[in-house]
Amino acid sequence: MTETQIPAVEALVFDVFGTVVDWRASIIRELEAFGRARRISADWTALADAWRAGYQPAMDRVRKGEIGWTVIDDLHRETLEVLLPRFGVEALSDADKDHLNKAWHRLDPWPDAVAGLTRLKRRYVIGTLSNGNVALLLNMAKHAGLPWDMIFSAELARAYKPAPASYRSVPALLRIEAAQVMLVAAHNNDLVAAAREGLRTGFVARPTEYGPHQTHDFKAEHDFDVVARDFVHLAEIMGA
Amino acid sequence: MTETQIPAVEALVFDVFGTVVDWRASIIRELEAFGRARRISADWTALADAWRAGYQPAMDRVRKGEIGWTVIDDLHRETLEVLLPRFGVEALSDADKDHLNKAWHRLDPWPDAVAGLTRLKRRYVIGTLSNGNVALLLNMAKHAGLPWDMIFSAELARAYKPAPASYRSVPALLRIEAAQVMLVAAHNNDLVAAAREGLRTGFVARPTEYGPHQTHDFKAEHDFDVVARDFVHLAEIMGA
Repeated sequence: MTETQIPAVEALVFDVFGTVVDWRASIIRELEAFGRARRISADWTALADAWRAGYQPAMDRVRKGEIGWTVIDDLHRETLEVLLPRFGVEALSDADKDHLNKAWHRLDPWPDAVAGLTRLKRRYVIGTLSNGNVALLLNMAKHAGLPWDMIFSAELARAYKPAPASYRSVPALLRIEAAQVMLVAAHNNDLVAAAREGLRTGFVARPTEYGPHQTHDFKAEHDFDVVARDFVHLAEIMGA
Repeated sequence: MTETQIPAVEALVFDVFGTVVDWRASIIRELEAFGRARRISADWTALADAWRAGYQPAMDRVRKGEIGWTVIDDLHRETLEVLLPRFGVEALSDADKDHLNKAWHRLDPWPDAVAGLTRLKRRYVIGTLSNGNVALLLNMAKHAGLPWDMIFSAELARAYKPAPASYRSVPALLRIEAAQVMLVAAHNNDLVAAAREGLRTGFVARPTEYGPHQTHDFKAEHDFDVVARDFVHLAEIMGA
């Protein structure tokens, strides 16, 4: 039984963007709806991809200390301000930009996410462990019906994944061993960094996260503790 | 309509010990069950009251800087170590002491709490705002079925209520105005301190919190935004 191979896990924490929610389809949908409502035409799909492409570079400025601690909401907004004119979208009001920026609070879950999490919650503490800030993750949970017990965020540790402090913050707050916490992610590098801090690892592939631009993370590339097809399969493996 | 008198509230955060859960009956029940199982007789009711009486003095040591940041689990344990011999309970194992200390993770809610919170959650972000640490509050939520969206804790701010930073941490993490957050508590002084930081206030009397030893907080003594009989009444007043 796989269940007995992983006896000590008490909490499962989840990467969110890409692992729990389909950010790409959701952001494209939000941008297109905005364009229709405002009668603005633009390559909304390319804007969505460019916005996401700015995500790691924006966090890198924080990681390298070029700027002080800055939450994802503010990094998303700065990236958006740069991209809008490049995509020919000019002269939006602050309220419109706020609305677009909060599209990241309204991302939709992958079809299996809520069912799997609901099962896992009966047996384990379940939480986020995302670089998204608390307000973003909380609003997303209300929007998408994600039944988290706790919102863990890089914001609480003031350290973006893959910094060790981000992973360590979860067992520290739960007052359990790192090995009693499993990170679930669709990204090999996130799991490798978590394993380095002693966390258990669970891989769930999301091969359409980047749409036609997906180049990696089609499958588990390391010896993770669990590899599941989706969250319902993960719940089965974990005996929940 | 009371609902329109409080238009801006987006989140309700709750004091926990005494406001959401009946710590006294729960701790007495846990201690008595332990005594029966171990065939140890002692004045368990008096021990429960003495344990709780040590709560504010223990936090005062942190507040005054006499000791560094220390979570409630550890303060509870230190107090228990002092009290056990005074009550004639000797030579317990570490495992037994851990079990007793974690009784604070297994407190039962007041009868109206889960129903009221479940209604409020449909319309508002609901969270704790307790001096209890995250692990304690999370385990309690699992035990008692408390449907929090978020565990806010003095631990996240590293400041015990009534320190301003403890209250301010909630609107800061939610990225909303302090006036959009309501603290709900059964304790006048907690609400007065929250109001000083700009939070809205909701009072729910818990006149049996201290059993026969209750001396105050029988009623709202200040002009709070809402005074409700219980959490279901609070949900009605808040339009949830």
